[in-house]
Amino acid sequence: MLSKNQIKLISSLKQKKRRLQSGLFVVEGVKTIKELLQSQFVLDTLYTTESFKSDAKQEELISETELNRISFLKTPNKALAIFKIPKPKAIDFNELIIALDDVRDPGNLGAIIRLCDWFGVKDLVCSEETVDCYNPKVIQATMGSITRVNVSYTDLSVFLKQSEQNSYGAFMNGTSVYNMELPSKGILVLGNEANGISNELEKIINKKVTIPRFGNLQATESLNVATATAVLLSEFKRRFIEK
Amino acid sequence: MLSKNQIKLISSLKQKKRRLQSGLFVVEGVKTIKELLQSQFVLDTLYTTESFKSDAKQEELISETELNRISFLKTPNKALAIFKIPKPKAIDFNELIIALDDVRDPGNLGAIIRLCDWFGVKDLVCSEETVDCYNPKVIQATMGSITRVNVSYTDLSVFLKQSEQNSYGAFMNGTSVYNMELPSKGILVLGNEANGISNELEKIINKKVTIPRFGNLQATESLNVATATAVLLSEFKRRFIEK
Repeated sequence: MLSKNQIKLISSLKQKKRRLQSGLFVVEGVKTIKELLQSQFVLDTLYTTESFKSDAKQEELISETELNRISFLKTPNKALAIFKIPKPKAIDFNELIIALDDVRDPGNLGAIIRLCDWFGVKDLVCSEETVDCYNPKVIQATMGSITRVNVSYTDLSVFLKQSEQNSYGAFMNGTSVYNMELPSKGILVLGNEANGISNELEKIINKKVTIPRFGNLQATESLNVATATAVLLSEFKRRFIEK
Repeated sequence: MLSKNQIKLISSLKQKKRRLQSGLFVVEGVKTIKELLQSQFVLDTLYTTESFKSDAKQEELISETELNRISFLKTPNKALAIFKIPKPKAIDFNELIIALDDVRDPGNLGAIIRLCDWFGVKDLVCSEETVDCYNPKVIQATMGSITRVNVSYTDLSVFLKQSEQNSYGAFMNGTSVYNMELPSKGILVLGNEANGISNELEKIINKKVTIPRFGNLQATESLNVATATAVLLSEFKRRFIEK
């Protein structure tokens, strides 16, 4: 039986401020919860309608009705878990790093974390204004990839200035990615959904890279940031295997 | 002043069934509405808080309060327009065509329509189960690209059987897209978010294509369908310019 305090805590974790205060976040769905249980993430409490038969002492059986009450989803999926937010690990500058300048949409951040996982990018560095990766919608969209990508939040201009590697920014007026020399290490920066990369960062970034537009002149002004990340990451990585 | 019938009609257009019955769909936001006004789409009614000063006799000035009442968005953007659903145009088999087998998420379909526009793909062919492209969330996500991509709905197995071009399907166990000969025309098929391409279509598709996974063995099982489309489209198109 869920207590009022438990329900209140879970509901509060929709808010970034409350997640930061408590150091906790919510994960839903049996598959993603299982992935997190097998990872370095530390479980706080597991609320489930069917026992996971794990050794987790923090497992608490609840009814469907109770799950409906606490779930953030329209169609809850058997379990809801609370995990502890881990401390970000040190960043490995000898690999390709993705940096996000003010990406706001949870679905976009989730898709980008999944892309990092797929393409073997270990470190994702986000500006402070970028949507929180422990936002429930982001966690949902990562499909478990959050366990394999190290996400940090920092001041990107300081970060880029401190790095010794070249930075590549996705701009509309850069060199075609198809004609560009791309390294196996460096920082690839993508910008906000509406405004792209900020003027401040533009001054610091070493190279401007563009995905050429094949459509006619009236074609769309830009690509969605997650699909642009997909194309650029694919280009960086395929060169590496072809070398 | 909006009548009850007008409010009822607009609200009903959230449903696919009602859109099909009336042949109408809703577009919101000044920028997207302007793009549609300049395209071949035919306006039914434009409800706006500021005059577009167009010749459109169908323009009706409404108050902010009225816009809030009819808008599907959390933060309405000055105008809401009703347009007529156009008849799909004939498909050009001498170009690269994208086909979607049961893609359900409106954000994914919107991002894919935007990708088609960017990469100069004129025809997008969807299975009957794929989310309706006149769904308000899809229209929103296309950012105007819906005016430049011809979207048709049909039985994909019949469509593939009738086509004389080769079909390429995105599978987990296909040939690496980086090592594959890719033509300038053909049909590229992408599948459902959870289940991929159906068994029925798998039997008909000529070639299986895969985006190699660079992450370790524990990495994510699959990519989001819109980001996978981005990588594959980029590969098909860059070969064409390099030839």
